[in-house]
Amino acid sequence: MSEAVHTLEGWFVLHDFRTIDWTAWKALSETDRQAAIEELKHFIQACKQVEDNKEGAFAIYTIVGQKADVLFVQMRPTLQEVGEVETAFNKLRFAECTIPAYSYVSVVELSNYLNKEGKDPYQDPYVRGRLYPTLPKTEHICFYPMDKKREGADNWYMLSMEQRREMMRSHGLIGRKYAGQVTQIISGSVGLDDWEWGVTLFADDPIVFKKLVYEMRFDEASARFGDFGSFFVGNRLPDDQLEDFLSI
Amino acid sequence: MSEAVHTLEGWFVLHDFRTIDWTAWKALSETDRQAAIEELKHFIQACKQVEDNKEGAFAIYTIVGQKADVLFVQMRPTLQEVGEVETAFNKLRFAECTIPAYSYVSVVELSNYLNKEGKDPYQDPYVRGRLYPTLPKTEHICFYPMDKKREGADNWYMLSMEQRREMMRSHGLIGRKYAGQVTQIISGSVGLDDWEWGVTLFADDPIVFKKLVYEMRFDEASARFGDFGSFFVGNRLPDDQLEDFLSI
Amino acid sequence: MSEAVHTLEGWFVLHDFRTIDWTAWKALSETDRQAAIEELKHFIQACKQVEDNKEGAFAIYTIVGQKADVLFVQMRPTLQEVGEVETAFNKLRFAECTIPAYSYVSVVELSNYLNKEGKDPYQDPYVRGRLYPTLPKTEHICFYPMDKKREGADNWYMLSMEQRREMMRSHGLIGRKYAGQVTQIISGSVGLDDWEWGVTLFADDPIVFKKLVYEMRFDEASARFGDFGSFFVGNRLPDDQLEDFLSI
Amino acid sequence: MSEAVHTLEGWFVLHDFRTIDWTAWKALSETDRQAAIEELKHFIQACKQVEDNKEGAFAIYTIVGQKADVLFVQMRPTLQEVGEVETAFNKLRFAECTIPAYSYVSVVELSNYLNKEGKDPYQDPYVRGRLYPTLPKTEHICFYPMDKKREGADNWYMLSMEQRREMMRSHGLIGRKYAGQVTQIISGSVGLDDWEWGVTLFADDPIVFKKLVYEMRFDEASARFGDFGSFFVGNRLPDDQLEDFLSI
Amino acid sequence: MSEAVHTLEGWFVLHDFRTIDWTAWKALSETDRQAAIEELKHFIQACKQVEDNKEGAFAIYTIVGQKADVLFVQMRPTLQEVGEVETAFNKLRFAECTIPAYSYVSVVELSNYLNKEGKDPYQDPYVRGRLYPTLPKTEHICFYPMDKKREGADNWYMLSMEQRREMMRSHGLIGRKYAGQVTQIISGSVGLDDWEWGVTLFADDPIVFKKLVYEMRFDEASARFGDFGSFFVGNRLPDDQLEDFLSI
Repeated sequence: MSEAVHTLEGWFVLHDFRTIDWTAWKALSETDRQAAIEELKHFIQACKQVEDNKEGAFAIYTIVGQKADVLFVQMRPTLQEVGEVETAFNKLRFAECTIPAYSYVSVVELSNYLNKEGKDPYQDPYVRGRLYPTLPKTEHICFYPMDKKREGADNWYMLSMEQRREMMRSHGLIGRKYAGQVTQIISGSVGLDDWEWGVTLFADDPIVFKKLVYEMRFDEASARFGDFGSFFVGNRLPDDQLEDFLSI
Repeated sequence: MSEAVHTLEGWFVLHDFRTIDWTAWKALSETDRQAAIEELKHFIQACKQVEDNKEGAFAIYTIVGQKADVLFVQMRPTLQEVGEVETAFNKLRFAECTIPAYSYVSVVELSNYLNKEGKDPYQDPYVRGRLYPTLPKTEHICFYPMDKKREGADNWYMLSMEQRREMMRSHGLIGRKYAGQVTQIISGSVGLDDWEWGVTLFADDPIVFKKLVYEMRFDEASARFGDFGSFFVGNRLPDDQLEDFLSI
Repeated sequence: MSEAVHTLEGWFVLHDFRTIDWTAWKALSETDRQAAIEELKHFIQACKQVEDNKEGAFAIYTIVGQKADVLFVQMRPTLQEVGEVETAFNKLRFAECTIPAYSYVSVVELSNYLNKEGKDPYQDPYVRGRLYPTLPKTEHICFYPMDKKREGADNWYMLSMEQRREMMRSHGLIGRKYAGQVTQIISGSVGLDDWEWGVTLFADDPIVFKKLVYEMRFDEASARFGDFGSFFVGNRLPDDQLEDFLSI
Repeated sequence: MSEAVHTLEGWFVLHDFRTIDWTAWKALSETDRQAAIEELKHFIQACKQVEDNKEGAFAIYTIVGQKADVLFVQMRPTLQEVGEVETAFNKLRFAECTIPAYSYVSVVELSNYLNKEGKDPYQDPYVRGRLYPTLPKTEHICFYPMDKKREGADNWYMLSMEQRREMMRSHGLIGRKYAGQVTQIISGSVGLDDWEWGVTLFADDPIVFKKLVYEMRFDEASARFGDFGSFFVGNRLPDDQLEDFLSI
Repeated sequence: MSEAVHTLEGWFVLHDFRTIDWTAWKALSETDRQAAIEELKHFIQACKQVEDNKEGAFAIYTIVGQKADVLFVQMRPTLQEVGEVETAFNKLRFAECTIPAYSYVSVVELSNYLNKEGKDPYQDPYVRGRLYPTLPKTEHICFYPMDKKREGADNWYMLSMEQRREMMRSHGLIGRKYAGQVTQIISGSVGLDDWEWGVTLFADDPIVFKKLVYEMRFDEASARFGDFGSFFVGNRLPDDQLEDFLSI
């Protein structure tokens, strides 16, 4: 049996992807639609307030392609609160005009492959900043879930801690080349959702998503051991463009 | 041909995951909705009465993410009774506002890898307590189905009884580290549903689900031989929060 | 090229799994619902008459879990007749309140791995009884489709006839241990449906399904070569419980 | 790099599988339903006229099981014409009462593994008869798509032309044993649809489909290299039974 | 770790496949349907204007088979603009009568396996013409997404740059044989959508798609390393045939 790496956990995360039912949306009366927009705005403002209070984090992006139309990223200290904000959204009038498209439940995670200090990492301001992040306001977002493979000779979980540490170090070096261009949030979902991790990337230039993920694919950690789910890419939806996006 | 381990079977189990059709729920008149809630409450009370009478077990949790909104866990002495409680639910007015999301049919199981005593295990109070359990009232639940792999060199069913016993012993040691933090119910579903086992975990801290499943993944029994289905995680829905959950 | 085993074929089989749309069912007027029940009863009686006449076979079971609510097993001498009874069901008023859930098309099959006599097997009363069976009226049913694997070194169809015969013999010995507890009907579906065989098990104790399939999984024929589809398990629906099952 | 075999192409083919929405069909007024039947009959007559004119081919079969209810096979000289006949069907009143179930786009193909003559094969009457066929009016049809595997050591496309030719020759010998009992049309779909080939079999005895496909499965070309999609099997729907099939 | 090839990126691409809901389309009043056609024509003209202005590219094809009815190919300089044109389509009246069928998000890509010059490739007119193309007006289109495999010994990303370059060179030679018959646009989608690349082929003879893809399949780059998604094939829909296509 191989040794499991120690992990640190921060906020719980819900990635909530929705497809808009434009036909239902158009079928609303102008009054009802305006009321639905106002109610949605209040919901969004409440989520932002949570982020301003450092009691969670929030982002809203439109998604390109038919997989979804909108993504709400919700981070909260407890799974209970994540469930509550999901239910609150479901009860909105706007939600009646959306169709669930995909969701992902996870918890912000730091893998302790490199650091093994004696002091409590949860007291380290840098660590806290990564476990309880404020989301960047970049123009674009990318999300995908992933596993480490367990297929024949390519079985990540049968490698020694040393082998895994070395591969993750090399993997991290690629990420570091993109520092300043992309912000990456890793959230763990073993025991919470269908894949082992969720990866959320933020950048102002979406080509960076492609360059980063492609370069990593040649790294042994991904080339031999990476197994990837669906990729979602989107554009920021600022408050002042919400009405325009929903206008008909 | 390898020797099959002897198993003990207890109650039959139905994990019944439902998605709420909030649009249909809202479309009900206030009177009809209230009647549907009352009827649902009676259904839940009847299920609890069965549990109080030690004639089965019952739990209700809300599920986080779009896979489902509510999970009903039903345990009964016979498959006939499990089918009856499922049909009874389907006839509720509330059920008209839900969409089937996922279900799992299994039977509580104990693997006799370690014990091989002469006496009838079904008379052992400890064994009986595990085969016919009262479900813990923890804050969180986790459910996932799983198989043992049969792929090339990683074929669990071609291992000797001794090899399997040793791996399950090591596996059990990890579980024991989490004693007091998590309650685990294993139910077998070979011949009953699409995977070989269902695993239901109960804990007050959902991070424990992640830590436990992740640590086990490095154990050879999981690393080489575990094949996992979807993971569902949820929050306890106490009686006094049911109305709030369903309020619009 | 390996030699194909000779097979004998009997009745064509349709396993017709249906999910009941309870909302639509409840929306019928009491009169219409009663008329639909009467029409369904006539359909069932006609199917039973076919069985009584030894011109086919029929069974109806409720299915546990969300995969389906009811299973109709229809056996007929020709594929044309199987198609006709399927269409006849589709035209019932009751069918308007059901949703297709799964179906399986096959033909009752005997593999001639053991016997190679000179005389015409279709004249042997024992063989005829198995090819043109009357279905047992057990309390429970189990159905699953399966393939023999063709993956790398685990390729059933590249084995010699001798190797396959030996494995099937060992496989059959397990089945024989359950004689009296379970009745098994194998139907072949190569060229007819998506898997190579359908397996239908009948027993009064559903734990027998689990014990039998689990024990076989350790047998090389299954351990290395078995590839299984979905498992469906159900409870017998006697005539005098049909109205109760459909009452609202 | 291995040498690709030369292929000859004939008519484009659309296999158009439809499920009948019997509820919608019944909901039509008697007048509308009769008008829809008349319109459908005209459509079918026009397709038959195309076949009579040797400008294409056409067949209509009912499908057994829930995968589909009806199959329309359409062959035409150009992909444009295939698209047109598909759209024409979609505009029929009858089409409003059907649900798309599955479709397959391909082109009748002859593989030139055996013949390499100097003369233009498209002028050979035998070749022309196979590339531009009139469909047999057998009682039954079977359709399935397939690939040649490219998995590890079982990679068809890494074999030499000589190896492939030898295996296809052996494969063809099996087919020849069934001459007179079954007519086989191979259509290629590389670059046109999701599998590499579609196989359409015609026979008066559907057991022949099972015998033929099963025997071939032991042949190395199938055993090691065949990868199969869904199998559809059906019954001929003669003109004079169309009304009966659609009567309610 | 293997060295990643350098890539050049041009326009972002959305392949937007739609199925027409003919029943909804027919249910519109003649006036509404005509208004919807006029609005759709304006949308198409605006897309063509973008192409005429060299600020993007556009194509519309009908798709054969049930996978979709229409394909809109949209190329734009930014992901934001691609999202905007998708949303604009979704708000059309015509869109209310369509069902999302499939979509693909990517960016036109050139792989720099062969050229490694010192000068800025984005200034090279030939390179610019390929990164920011005007789409050919051929009679037919073919689209499919693909990956390079990472399975055991067939792991593209574990090959050396030299091995990959040699295989891509051989691969390119096949493509060159079809020069003049087919135009190929490769778009990269690592980090943007579920596969690594999208391939869009344009030709006047659809048999060329089959010949090209089939011949390439025997090339090691495809035979061992190609993993393919769904194939879509279609017919050009010229402006003056739009009304005819949508007439009922």
